[in-house]
Amino acid sequence: MASVLDKISNIFVPSDSSKDDTNMGQAKYSANANGVANGHGALANGNGHVANGHDHHHGEQCARPHPQVSFADTTIDPTSFIGKLRALYAGTVLKTQLEQMRKQGSYDAFRLGWNDKYDVRRLKGAMTRQDGIPPSLFWESDVGKWIEGACYFLASPDGRSSPHASEFTTSIQELVDMIEKAQGEDGYLNIYFTVVDPEGRFRNLRDMHEMYNAGHLVEAALAHYHLTGSRQLLDVMIKNVECFARTFGPGPNQLHGYPGHPELELAVLRLHGVTNNPAHLDFAKYLLEARGVKREDQGGESYFVHEAKRRGDEVTAQTMVNLKDMTYNQSHAPLHQQDAILGHSVRALYLTTAAADLGGAFLEDAKRLLGDAVDHKMYATGGLGTEPRTEGFSTIPYHLPQSTGEGGCYAETCASIAAMMTSERILSHGLDGKVRDAMELCLLNAVLGGGSLDGKAFAYANKHATYGDETAIRKEWFEVCCCPPNLSRTLGMIGGYTWSAKVDLSAKRINLDVYLFVSATRKISLPGGAEATVKMETEMPWEGKTQWSFTAPAGWEWAVRVPKPNYAQDIQVSVAADESTPGFLSFPVKASSSVTMTFSLPVRLLASNPLTGQDTLTVTRGPITYVAESIDNPGLDKSHPHFQGIGFPESATFSERKLDVLGFEVVALETDQEVYALDQLSEQSAHFAVGSKKPARTWKKTGEKVTLVPWFARANRGGAGRVRVSMMRVDKA
Amino acid sequence: MASVLDKISNIFVPSDSSKDDTNMGQAKYSANANGVANGHGALANGNGHVANGHDHHHGEQCARPHPQVSFADTTIDPTSFIGKLRALYAGTVLKTQLEQMRKQGSYDAFRLGWNDKYDVRRLKGAMTRQDGIPPSLFWESDVGKWIEGACYFLASPDGRSSPHASEFTTSIQELVDMIEKAQGEDGYLNIYFTVVDPEGRFRNLRDMHEMYNAGHLVEAALAHYHLTGSRQLLDVMIKNVECFARTFGPGPNQLHGYPGHPELELAVLRLHGVTNNPAHLDFAKYLLEARGVKREDQGGESYFVHEAKRRGDEVTAQTMVNLKDMTYNQSHAPLHQQDAILGHSVRALYLTTAAADLGGAFLEDAKRLLGDAVDHKMYATGGLGTEPRTEGFSTIPYHLPQSTGEGGCYAETCASIAAMMTSERILSHGLDGKVRDAMELCLLNAVLGGGSLDGKAFAYANKHATYGDETAIRKEWFEVCCCPPNLSRTLGMIGGYTWSAKVDLSAKRINLDVYLFVSATRKISLPGGAEATVKMETEMPWEGKTQWSFTAPAGWEWAVRVPKPNYAQDIQVSVAADESTPGFLSFPVKASSSVTMTFSLPVRLLASNPLTGQDTLTVTRGPITYVAESIDNPGLDKSHPHFQGIGFPESATFSERKLDVLGFEVVALETDQEVYALDQLSEQSAHFAVGSKKPARTWKKTGEKVTLVPWFARANRGGAGRVRVSMMRVDKA
Repeated sequence: MASVLDKISNIFVPSDSSKDDTNMGQAKYSANANGVANGHGALANGNGHVANGHDHHHGEQCARPHPQVSFADTTIDPTSFIGKLRALYAGTVLKTQLEQMRKQGSYDAFRLGWNDKYDVRRLKGAMTRQDGIPPSLFWESDVGKWIEGACYFLASPDGRSSPHASEFTTSIQELVDMIEKAQGEDGYLNIYFTVVDPEGRFRNLRDMHEMYNAGHLVEAALAHYHLTGSRQLLDVMIKNVECFARTFGPGPNQLHGYPGHPELELAVLRLHGVTNNPAHLDFAKYLLEARGVKREDQGGESYFVHEAKRRGDEVTAQTMVNLKDMTYNQSHAPLHQQDAILGHSVRALYLTTAAADLGGAFLEDAKRLLGDAVDHKMYATGGLGTEPRTEGFSTIPYHLPQSTGEGGCYAETCASIAAMMTSERILSHGLDGKVRDAMELCLLNAVLGGGSLDGKAFAYANKHATYGDETAIRKEWFEVCCCPPNLSRTLGMIGGYTWSAKVDLSAKRINLDVYLFVSATRKISLPGGAEATVKMETEMPWEGKTQWSFTAPAGWEWAVRVPKPNYAQDIQVSVAADESTPGFLSFPVKASSSVTMTFSLPVRLLASNPLTGQDTLTVTRGPITYVAESIDNPGLDKSHPHFQGIGFPESATFSERKLDVLGFEVVALETDQEVYALDQLSEQSAHFAVGSKKPARTWKKTGEKVTLVPWFARANRGGAGRVRVSMMRVDKA
Repeated sequence: MASVLDKISNIFVPSDSSKDDTNMGQAKYSANANGVANGHGALANGNGHVANGHDHHHGEQCARPHPQVSFADTTIDPTSFIGKLRALYAGTVLKTQLEQMRKQGSYDAFRLGWNDKYDVRRLKGAMTRQDGIPPSLFWESDVGKWIEGACYFLASPDGRSSPHASEFTTSIQELVDMIEKAQGEDGYLNIYFTVVDPEGRFRNLRDMHEMYNAGHLVEAALAHYHLTGSRQLLDVMIKNVECFARTFGPGPNQLHGYPGHPELELAVLRLHGVTNNPAHLDFAKYLLEARGVKREDQGGESYFVHEAKRRGDEVTAQTMVNLKDMTYNQSHAPLHQQDAILGHSVRALYLTTAAADLGGAFLEDAKRLLGDAVDHKMYATGGLGTEPRTEGFSTIPYHLPQSTGEGGCYAETCASIAAMMTSERILSHGLDGKVRDAMELCLLNAVLGGGSLDGKAFAYANKHATYGDETAIRKEWFEVCCCPPNLSRTLGMIGGYTWSAKVDLSAKRINLDVYLFVSATRKISLPGGAEATVKMETEMPWEGKTQWSFTAPAGWEWAVRVPKPNYAQDIQVSVAADESTPGFLSFPVKASSSVTMTFSLPVRLLASNPLTGQDTLTVTRGPITYVAESIDNPGLDKSHPHFQGIGFPESATFSERKLDVLGFEVVALETDQEVYALDQLSEQSAHFAVGSKKPARTWKKTGEKVTLVPWFARANRGGAGRVRVSMMRVDKA
């Protein structure tokens, strides 16, 4: 085994790229230059302001800037709904997370000192290999995501006005310095395998998260580079990627591995956007192409099976059914052969993000798998993942239990963030109203609900109904705390998810595709130092009223596409618009003018597909999904804990009222009629005989109405914290 | 580690019993006598006829003979429903199973030759520890159960008239000879650990089934002894039990282990019934008392956790969540502290069988845990076990998905046999109508359905509805084939489940408790060579008409209790009867007379507890639960595969007709009205908006009626083999 690794020499030779003269105007990769393209890298000035972030105008990716870069062209209105959320994240959330990381130890871990948490056995008396994975194994990714999020906020006016901006800047620099020092001579960079288990490196890509962590640090490095113009962290991570790419690849002297938890793929694709180094693109492509391939020289097995045999390790990850069932980490088959989205939800959707970004046949994979998720495996909040044991998708379409008491529900915050990531990459290739609607649904429900509105607590799993002793009350932190900093970076780059602008030089046309309704202004650079701007003013998600004000130099025009959401009724647009792009309204705009769009947002009741086994109704209004919680309905929650057996008919009507939730004004709903309770809940046996005198279902009036609040705003105002999203459909009221 | 075992010396010293003079008339245990009680053992005569099997008239157990012994007093009417089933088992099933065992290799395995199946890795390329358990690891139990079942049949006239009776007798003897030779000097007896892994013995009680196998061989030995009077196998197994009892026990130089799969407990309790050796009782008690106890001298852990640490083994059974979650094998807590029935269903219910047999506080445990199973975790067929992964109970009450598509359903045949075993032991202490009803439900549905009515195929899992490519078609055999021979021994001793008779000498009263409606005759020995008989003639389970004819010497009377089943309507008894025992009708009978009982068996529709999440109706008639299958309903199965979305209202009525299923006349049912199909099944997304124009549920008439057959009789007449037990409740028809 050691000899296999020993044989691997420095084979990352950028010879092909050095011979390639077609990338005009871009630096070739060299060991010294580390491959940052000329003229596209340095975006920062002294005050940390990031210039127009289009760092790759050439090649396939040019027309599809990443939201992690393009966000910098957008300024969010600080008085708007999203603007206020960003103020919370810049003012409180990032600070909370920084303190938690210091407390937990991840902040200082790059100093490579000992931490008792590395010794899982001593700490927990744990004996399984699953428990044997120390929670610290994810610390690089937590730190990386925090750096990334903080950099995004510091790149924007509202972030820079945070009272903690200076501390964030100092902390970022301290972390970058630590990370730099923690790197080995060969580029290797991982806390656990440096401090605790040097022999274990590259031995278990399936479980040990080396590539996953590296990917998040690459993303941190890109964010840091874009913010500061400093190559300090970027060079570290390029060297680290090269370390991986020397060891893993298609070559005869390489191991043919790939990440157990996808992330490095999408990060290296983004890195390539900065370096334009074809070797980086090749490595990212390799990671996607190698996944799930059974190879003769691996005993006819895919890599993780082969790798485990090589270790002499009979232990599966606890989350896998057995060592040969690699659906958990999506390596059961090459991606092109995967028909259903399976396994760990975050892994699956990070993988599809990279696939969508790469394009071609991989884009089709991403579309197919995200489509399966959205159509068959997504909760009404945009939550994804049914199975707590695997943090993953069910193998069964439409198997979407609401609670532990129904047999599952997980809906990890990160999974819905990952669905947004994949959706955005798919939209960057071409608009699709269904994909857009899903991305918006995820953001405004599953994702935003991952954080409390005081900025100090977070949700990892987001069960749609509580059960037994469970509550929906968020936690201050987690042993594995992937979700909180993932929220920060998502809000930090939200301008990048808002819209896409492409300049058609020959037609002198700006193609603006609006993805989300967010009050914001975007600047679009035009040749000769000219600039166009579009300002979006919206009352969404509470009222369907949006205005776009376009300004461009004379002679320029706009081709605009705005969402036609599935929930919008009575849509009115102030100009003639067509529906040539399904799910969008398209209209041209002369250089400068305004367009107004209005629609109504009536309460919509969603039924569940009968194959879910649920005869329930879910209350929505516009893109917002609603939930009943204890604080508003103490009587119902007392008589029917967790609102079990409470329902209303399809004919129910609702009244709206404004509700202040920790400074956020939301629309709450209340039934106009009292709701019903199912009498048969008191049955003590699983089956009971029915007849003319004893019906299967009788509904009794409760004497109480039910109040519902937006899912994201739940569990912010005290109370017992019991919740239910989908209520029973009353059939005979 | 080796030293721990090496230290264990021959500490099974029957000193206490040799000093105990209170067991008058019974042989004391000694190494030579091997503890068979005087005067109670030899039951056989030359033609294999078994005399009155009351082998323990003294002590607590005396009043509660085991069905494995008492069956011999009962002769089943060969023309009756159960009689015909027994003819099938004696004529075909036992022969089929014998041939399958020969083919599989288990029959010859006691010769201790090599079998490629022992080498799991070479065979399957498997790498997980779960796969690392060879299927052969259960062979002793398969052979043991077959011997047991064959002995029971050979002890009865209908079994002895099997065309294969002579072959069975020869085979039993051949197996007994092989088993005897396979035993080690120290009493150890296990094929795998003798042939393949001698170092591994006693190292992994959690997974490796040494005690489980031994228990089944003890039961085989008891059956063989009762049939033949030969001590050949009995002595082997007593020696084997002593080997276990030397190694495992409460003593300071013993290991404090117990079976990963309970069985040895109940077998040794029964063995004690023959040997009256208090050391045997003590060992059985020890096994029950030690289970789940955390001990200081085991590092504060229970045995299986301690044992795994001792092995240096970080591998959990795949079926367990982690090494510390011992609910899978019911060792998560001492039995007295277990409130809910959890884990592997067969293990759980074998354990409660032993607990009920032992009595006292353990009886209360058995009642509590069986009660939890019956009330909250039992399917309408008496099926038990929701989770295919663990072959086990859900942790969630009322979580009873019907199919893979709903997220589970297992209902292993053995689990319902085990529920019968526990029920019978509870009833032996005192009648309980609910327990009796459950035992009957299990027998006539879940258990009988485990075998095809041609005697050549068997079911292991019994899913209530098929899904995808699944069918309900039974298999010829299984790699792990616990269920088929379990069926044989259950049918073989069915007379023991039928009723219980206790003679009150002082009152000159025979207390007869009828458990099941079976056409049979029972002889009851009275002092002075006198005899009483009761003959039960019944048309159950198809018609509610039963007659009991009692004959006893003058001066004797009967106190009779007969079932008052929960499904029976318009009950009429020809004598005055009271309900002093809930769920039973009690009446006295003079020495000789007849009593007739009639009741009607209307179709009963069972609703599901709302907490099951199912709004379904299940059709039952008397103790029989019905199912729709493809062969009778090709049109519905084609338009709605697996009868998904098919339903009828609570007001539906049914017509009965006789149906011949491979020579068994059963009652089939057909709806009088056409059934409905749910229109919304065609929805392609998990959620859809409803309103006045698009309702959540609309039911369309199918133009077809649905035919239903008894669950046990399904999949015997060809067809596609798709089934569904519970159909949707139509709410607005």
